[in-house]
Amino acid sequence: MIKAYLEENKDRFLNELFDLIRIPSVSADPKHKDDMRRAAAFVKDKLLAAGLDAAEVIDTAGHPVVFGEKIIDSAKPTVLVYGHYDVQPADPFELWHTPPFEPTIRNERIYARGACDDKGQFYMHVKAIEGMIAGGNLPCNVKVMIEGEEEVGSEHLGTFVAENRDRLKADVILISDTSIINNDTPSIESGLRGLSYVEVEVTGPNRDLHSGVYGGGVENPINVLCRMIASLKDEQGRITIPGFYDKVAELSTDERTELAKAPFDEAEYIHDLGLNAVAGEAGYSTPERTSIRPTLDVNGIWGGYTGEGAKTVLPAKAHAKISMRLVPNQDPDEITELFSRHFQAIAPSTVTVKVMPHHGGLPYVTPTDSVEFEAASKAFEEAWGKKPIPTRGGGSIPIVALFEQELGIKSILMGFGLDADALHSPNESYGLFNFFKGIETIPYFYKHYAELKK
Amino acid sequence: MIKAYLEENKDRFLNELFDLIRIPSVSADPKHKDDMRRAAAFVKDKLLAAGLDAAEVIDTAGHPVVFGEKIIDSAKPTVLVYGHYDVQPADPFELWHTPPFEPTIRNERIYARGACDDKGQFYMHVKAIEGMIAGGNLPCNVKVMIEGEEEVGSEHLGTFVAENRDRLKADVILISDTSIINNDTPSIESGLRGLSYVEVEVTGPNRDLHSGVYGGGVENPINVLCRMIASLKDEQGRITIPGFYDKVAELSTDERTELAKAPFDEAEYIHDLGLNAVAGEAGYSTPERTSIRPTLDVNGIWGGYTGEGAKTVLPAKAHAKISMRLVPNQDPDEITELFSRHFQAIAPSTVTVKVMPHHGGLPYVTPTDSVEFEAASKAFEEAWGKKPIPTRGGGSIPIVALFEQELGIKSILMGFGLDADALHSPNESYGLFNFFKGIETIPYFYKHYAELKK
Repeated sequence: MIKAYLEENKDRFLNELFDLIRIPSVSADPKHKDDMRRAAAFVKDKLLAAGLDAAEVIDTAGHPVVFGEKIIDSAKPTVLVYGHYDVQPADPFELWHTPPFEPTIRNERIYARGACDDKGQFYMHVKAIEGMIAGGNLPCNVKVMIEGEEEVGSEHLGTFVAENRDRLKADVILISDTSIINNDTPSIESGLRGLSYVEVEVTGPNRDLHSGVYGGGVENPINVLCRMIASLKDEQGRITIPGFYDKVAELSTDERTELAKAPFDEAEYIHDLGLNAVAGEAGYSTPERTSIRPTLDVNGIWGGYTGEGAKTVLPAKAHAKISMRLVPNQDPDEITELFSRHFQAIAPSTVTVKVMPHHGGLPYVTPTDSVEFEAASKAFEEAWGKKPIPTRGGGSIPIVALFEQELGIKSILMGFGLDADALHSPNESYGLFNFFKGIETIPYFYKHYAELKK
Repeated sequence: MIKAYLEENKDRFLNELFDLIRIPSVSADPKHKDDMRRAAAFVKDKLLAAGLDAAEVIDTAGHPVVFGEKIIDSAKPTVLVYGHYDVQPADPFELWHTPPFEPTIRNERIYARGACDDKGQFYMHVKAIEGMIAGGNLPCNVKVMIEGEEEVGSEHLGTFVAENRDRLKADVILISDTSIINNDTPSIESGLRGLSYVEVEVTGPNRDLHSGVYGGGVENPINVLCRMIASLKDEQGRITIPGFYDKVAELSTDERTELAKAPFDEAEYIHDLGLNAVAGEAGYSTPERTSIRPTLDVNGIWGGYTGEGAKTVLPAKAHAKISMRLVPNQDPDEITELFSRHFQAIAPSTVTVKVMPHHGGLPYVTPTDSVEFEAASKAFEEAWGKKPIPTRGGGSIPIVALFEQELGIKSILMGFGLDADALHSPNESYGLFNFFKGIETIPYFYKHYAELKK
């Protein structure tokens, strides 16, 4: 639909994306507050330049939301595009081969923080919309909502959505923040895991102690934290928090067989990640463990002396950040409550424990027999020459369940990333192929959706 | 013996100690290399000013050793004073009420890093020696060896000692780096624990991963490290490393009864440390757990994201610093080897594990029926009006066993600190009472030792 336009404007598209990437819009870090605003303003400008009738930066109690729209005909279906302009922190910096906020092309891939997650991905939509408007063939109304807090839990988006229900009225939400199986095997994620995230603090003595004078007589909070964390999973890889699995919707054998059709090369997976072996919940395959089963991971742990050399301290405190990925129908608030209660209960009497909840997110599954899903499937078929495989994703996009709850709108996860993009890691990247192929594919969604909704 | 001299010169003594404390001689931190030299030069100057015939700063492959001496009569016994001018790192800085390297007096205590460990303590000897020389009543030959690597394992002291056997010939080594029970209850430590210190690194994938995409399918090195650490002790608080206790010399019931005579107020201990309760190896009291039993403590742990907010990372690596306090007759090198072998053996096949040994130290016990011990006992009796109680200490001074091995000389641990000094912690302090009382007491050791050795 817009292939010619794309060809003519490739370089400009890429340069604009690079300019966006260069703004270090790290939502988790207060010292990047101004960069967040700069990025929002940039996105707004580009939406207007793409041809939207209106676009603005809307303040929230946190980072602003960018909203823009072009209404062509109220009788046509309306597509609401969602993305986020904020990115993960880039540390550890020393592991990046090129600076994280200076996009560099190597092996036909763009290396930078946010190259894929989510700037490269959402910007494809801005360019696809531009292409359709320039070609005079935008078949649906389009609204674009790009927020700035996805990486820190979209804390203020719920309020924004509740306060802007009319403005956000649409028939489908289109999101590019997921991946395809590989560049020869397009796929659409039909499900996302939910998230429960907590920070725990274990306190022993009221100050750091000399581990010779007190070691052996005073319980060490680090040793205790390790014991408590170790007890959270049993030898089968199952989480031991009472009630944790109660609401998990087990997949039927048929469903598992269907999902197992998606190609997965475990030897390559192991090789690519430099592992000796995979491991996880007994009775499930690796793709199942990373999509349809809930998990528990320690994302960070610290306590005592961690600098150079040796220090014989018995520290007062030990800390950890722990998150759990959830599946339907687990509820993040309930899981966080179960975790907190259990973690307090297993704490030995020698320490005091604090559990501080962070953001959570509901798990989400979208029906593969909907008009929306079919439009996306046809878009891939037309642009790629093959039907996409439905997959269940491991990651979370908490806002998706929120959208359905608050706006009654389903989301289609039409992402173009790859596992090799190394989201959240150093040396994140996005393929030039994927960026341009996405721009080419997206308009077909609009085309087919308009047709199917007639 | 020198009380009048002490009274006249109190302020100067304190000011000199303050000047010494102000030099941030942190041996563990390479950025303080020049401060180490400055501190060594300061000590040398003060030894000469005190009246020693000779004093010099002697280079080693690491931080220099300061050595000085005054030989009055080769027929007299020779006392070798050992101390260290290096100090523990001061972090976490934000927990200090006043700057760690700006000595501040509060409640008749000197607050600073090194106020007690070991500057306050060894400087008492320099002033005691000055007092005896000024009074013309130094009864023994005296040699002073103040090193700069005690807090990092005295790595180069063994070589220095081996290369200076003649220079270091003496009848007894006097060390002030331990504590008394309280200011009304003098005591002498008759034993020290040994030390084995290792750093471990657990590696899973070859890079940090997105915990949504990979969580559940890839083993998390932090979770693994926690499991491995948790398994190092059983529910009785006993260390599970095979062979760990093989060489532990169990005390007899009589010996335990004797040691139990030293006053210990567990309620006050618990209250002072802000604990809910004590805990340790089943079957032993708190004083026993912190003196005659070996231990294992995690001194530091880190991995993943530890900054502000949330980051859903499944990290590539997790690290810990782990140390074990040892008792006679455990051997630190053997224990380190047992630890390494066991830690590798318990690692699941999904990760690779590195164990990097740090410095160690042999445990040490000094006989309480020696002439040396008696001289120290009489010194306390004369200056304090009561016999000191022999105690077994929890801390380690690795060099003590080295001295006996290399030089054939026993050490007397005649320290004047208190548990409240908070060694190795923020807000370390040393009592003015203890500093001046120590200066007053030390000359009596020389007096009684000279008499007992006639």
